[in-house]
Amino acid sequence: MKIALAQINPTVGDLRGNSRKIVDYANQAHAQGADLAIFPELCVIGYPPQDLIENPLFLESARHALEWIAAQAPPDLGLILGAPVLNKEKVGKRIFNAAFLYEGGQKIAEIHKTLLPTYDVFDEYRHFEPAPERRLVEWRGLKLGLHICEDLWNNQAEAAFYLYHLNPIDELAALGADLLINISASPLAIHKHLERTQLILECCQEHGIPYLFCNQVGANTEIIFDGDSCVHGADGTPLLCAPQFEEALLIWDTEAVYPPCPKTYDAVKILHDALVLGIHDYFYKTGAFKKALIGLSGGIDSAVTCALAVEALGPDKVVGVTMPSKYSSSGSVGDSAALAENLGIEFHNIAIKPAVAAFDEMLAEVFRGTEPGIAEENVQARARGVTLMALSNKFGHLLLSTGNKSEMAVGYATLYGDMNGGLAVLSDVLKTRVYKLAHYINERAGRTVIPENTITKPPSAELAPDQKDQDSLPPYPVLDEILRRYIEEQEELDAIVAATGIDRALVLDILRRVDRNEYKRRQAPPGLRVTMKAFGIGRRLPIVMRWDRAAVATATADER
Amino acid sequence: MKIALAQINPTVGDLRGNSRKIVDYANQAHAQGADLAIFPELCVIGYPPQDLIENPLFLESARHALEWIAAQAPPDLGLILGAPVLNKEKVGKRIFNAAFLYEGGQKIAEIHKTLLPTYDVFDEYRHFEPAPERRLVEWRGLKLGLHICEDLWNNQAEAAFYLYHLNPIDELAALGADLLINISASPLAIHKHLERTQLILECCQEHGIPYLFCNQVGANTEIIFDGDSCVHGADGTPLLCAPQFEEALLIWDTEAVYPPCPKTYDAVKILHDALVLGIHDYFYKTGAFKKALIGLSGGIDSAVTCALAVEALGPDKVVGVTMPSKYSSSGSVGDSAALAENLGIEFHNIAIKPAVAAFDEMLAEVFRGTEPGIAEENVQARARGVTLMALSNKFGHLLLSTGNKSEMAVGYATLYGDMNGGLAVLSDVLKTRVYKLAHYINERAGRTVIPENTITKPPSAELAPDQKDQDSLPPYPVLDEILRRYIEEQEELDAIVAATGIDRALVLDILRRVDRNEYKRRQAPPGLRVTMKAFGIGRRLPIVMRWDRAAVATATADER
Repeated sequence: MKIALAQINPTVGDLRGNSRKIVDYANQAHAQGADLAIFPELCVIGYPPQDLIENPLFLESARHALEWIAAQAPPDLGLILGAPVLNKEKVGKRIFNAAFLYEGGQKIAEIHKTLLPTYDVFDEYRHFEPAPERRLVEWRGLKLGLHICEDLWNNQAEAAFYLYHLNPIDELAALGADLLINISASPLAIHKHLERTQLILECCQEHGIPYLFCNQVGANTEIIFDGDSCVHGADGTPLLCAPQFEEALLIWDTEAVYPPCPKTYDAVKILHDALVLGIHDYFYKTGAFKKALIGLSGGIDSAVTCALAVEALGPDKVVGVTMPSKYSSSGSVGDSAALAENLGIEFHNIAIKPAVAAFDEMLAEVFRGTEPGIAEENVQARARGVTLMALSNKFGHLLLSTGNKSEMAVGYATLYGDMNGGLAVLSDVLKTRVYKLAHYINERAGRTVIPENTITKPPSAELAPDQKDQDSLPPYPVLDEILRRYIEEQEELDAIVAATGIDRALVLDILRRVDRNEYKRRQAPPGLRVTMKAFGIGRRLPIVMRWDRAAVATATADER
Repeated sequence: MKIALAQINPTVGDLRGNSRKIVDYANQAHAQGADLAIFPELCVIGYPPQDLIENPLFLESARHALEWIAAQAPPDLGLILGAPVLNKEKVGKRIFNAAFLYEGGQKIAEIHKTLLPTYDVFDEYRHFEPAPERRLVEWRGLKLGLHICEDLWNNQAEAAFYLYHLNPIDELAALGADLLINISASPLAIHKHLERTQLILECCQEHGIPYLFCNQVGANTEIIFDGDSCVHGADGTPLLCAPQFEEALLIWDTEAVYPPCPKTYDAVKILHDALVLGIHDYFYKTGAFKKALIGLSGGIDSAVTCALAVEALGPDKVVGVTMPSKYSSSGSVGDSAALAENLGIEFHNIAIKPAVAAFDEMLAEVFRGTEPGIAEENVQARARGVTLMALSNKFGHLLLSTGNKSEMAVGYATLYGDMNGGLAVLSDVLKTRVYKLAHYINERAGRTVIPENTITKPPSAELAPDQKDQDSLPPYPVLDEILRRYIEEQEELDAIVAATGIDRALVLDILRRVDRNEYKRRQAPPGLRVTMKAFGIGRRLPIVMRWDRAAVATATADER
């Protein structure tokens, strides 16, 4: 038997486009001799649908789309499709996250997802009722252990604790599955593929059953799916591996012998490719923009953002604007111009002096007697923000914001200024990782794309005379170590100090800054998620929040 | 026996402040002869803690706070307290949402929440493991049916469907509870009290057991809790009712006879009081601001926002700024000045002409050959936004944004312009309800607070010559009827057209505008939630979203 895994890139809500794409892949699979074609979780509607799935008309339309696909696909091809389905019982959440087997336009089987991830970016129990039981799907003499995404992820043997009371894989294996088939919408995080591959390997080794993993690829708003679909043999050996970050069709011949497929991953390449795909899909899936627009400061964040945008959209669809002030170094304009030239993009130079002078004049009376400070610095950043948004509104440009995760963490960014944009490209990329990206971009191009001076000069917001980031922040390698442990590893003060030896007062100060700046991040553009814990929908913290970890740690009981 | 219900206003994360408040109320209850004092759900940490609860150090600190409270409270007073507690089992979510009974510093009982709301603004299954069983708490000869908030809300008799497979109330009644005690953090929505009271009434009538409902009061970030705690007798009669929107201590003498307590509610008063409390608590609980700042346009939204802020904070803590442009009517400045005078607040007039001229100059070259339009209109709104944020940054003001729900729905607002602010006061208040608020404010004051002209003139953004809202929007009563049904009642196109008779093309256009403007709302300030469906954390829609309800409804299967 030949089984196809269709690693497709659906768009959330695009029933028409997704349906056509599925039929197209089904035809391709059939043409290549496949008996069965497998598609990702909720492929008909795209993942994550969020609350759109609560709309009954949308659900009904999705059901029509499913039937249309089944009717259009080659009649002798089995189709495994993911789609939502109404719960007809009187009790429970109103929807199941379902996998269907269709053949000849007829529904052969329907199974429901058991484990519903409800953590980080996942809200599945918000919408879905869990399956009350596990069942095999019998088809053409095979017992298929069909299950959905998270159903794989309750590895009770390894973990210090496990989330779920059930293990669907064990149940399907015990029922006598011949094949384990997982349809997923499993988002990327750098290094997550290692965990996923290990889990599949252990699953095969424990049960001695081949494992087919069919994952969504592509980005929908902030969440990026890497694909990375694969077939592992009964002994766990990877037999077929789809590429990351692009659509693919794998055809597995169950009778054939395969050499182990080499899986090689490079963390910086993954980061680069993920961000490029994230920009590309946001731009084309919204369909709302003509070009991408980036404010170029001469610094590394805007340079890397711009280079990634050119990679994603091509140089003719990217516009760079430098907006010098009296505090800008001569290098700022020069480095920006050099970058634009290296990338071959449209480039503008709009000095913000008139706007800054105008606001100075307007505010002179109310500000009389005060010392210049943050307010005046922010006026500059906001004058740039207004300029960029004027260009965006006038020409239909998607403004990409350029702040990195380190800055977003400690609030080193101006709300309604440099935080302006439709998509925050680097908001899940720590500054030290931005440097790695810059080097990778130049190495990959085999030439200087990002000017040497942009990479080597000390980072500066250039909002005050001779200002440097490091005047008010620890060196980025130190800052990023604290931030990575606090945000991504969710370590606390004592653990960070113990592991790193960094001064306790400094760590405490950084943790407080992160907490205190939640209000800025709440109003940030959606950011591309590339780690296990990004700012945005997967990290939900209150703005009104008065916990003081230091006070609790030092106060006696009576003082509390 | 005397039982106290302490309707307190905790701050999320403020373990020290919440603990002291609880001990203070325990002492008051004891002084009034109470044997038992009951506090709201998660009162030690405040609700909703969101992901803060995932921090193990915070959890440990909360446990210490709980023990400190128990040790400080009068030793012969029973205390029912809500707090999170670690799940010590190897399987399941890591935390329980728990209710504790303490006496004499000792823990007498611990029960866990069974039904975990995971919809709208609630994310409880994200954090909590449900209780595996229901148990009574036996204390001083009484069998207490202690349960938590949502445990009440699975009314299987009435509903077309019900969410949960269990009914904790039925189980507790069957176990022989003498009293049903519900500790809650049940947020306000206008008219929700009716549903709550009805549910309690039916519960008493079905089981013949008195019901004690102790709810949190106060606002934490966007969510407002109205309190409204109460005691109903075994026959359902309300015996004691706490006020809405303020802290209160109810003492119920189980031996005494009470006349039914009158519950009267007025929708506009509830709306007014809720918003005032929301502003007050955001301002004081963040503790980050010296005054509140409002941009006054002369229109009704900014006037109502300003009047509510004065109600919440007092006139000495509110600053109004009018920022006329060449398109501003003479009334704009005059009406704003009149409002400021009526309210007795600090008032500034800062014309934006210099900034607009500066941006015109800066953009002249790149804009050459284009017609003035949205880009130029938005520059004006953003020049105002920059001005307000400069004042906010300079003087430590909380900028209140003034956009109403109707505008936020259809995107009739400028991102990084009039949408700027720390808190969106009216973002859950439809325009027609804003008018009701304006009349209520004037009636309540017994004088003209909001100028008559502000109420009667046609709404206008004043960003272009003779611009009126109604040039590009249907009349607000029509618009609001569509929006209320679509957003708050979650009705679809056909249902809205059928119920209202409004032109189908118009309804479709409005629904599309709502969907398309999700990107703006994603970057809006947190808004005070007063309905069952507000924009913000309770309504999660993708920005990348290509569902076209009209195409699906009209296309034949082959065209899909």
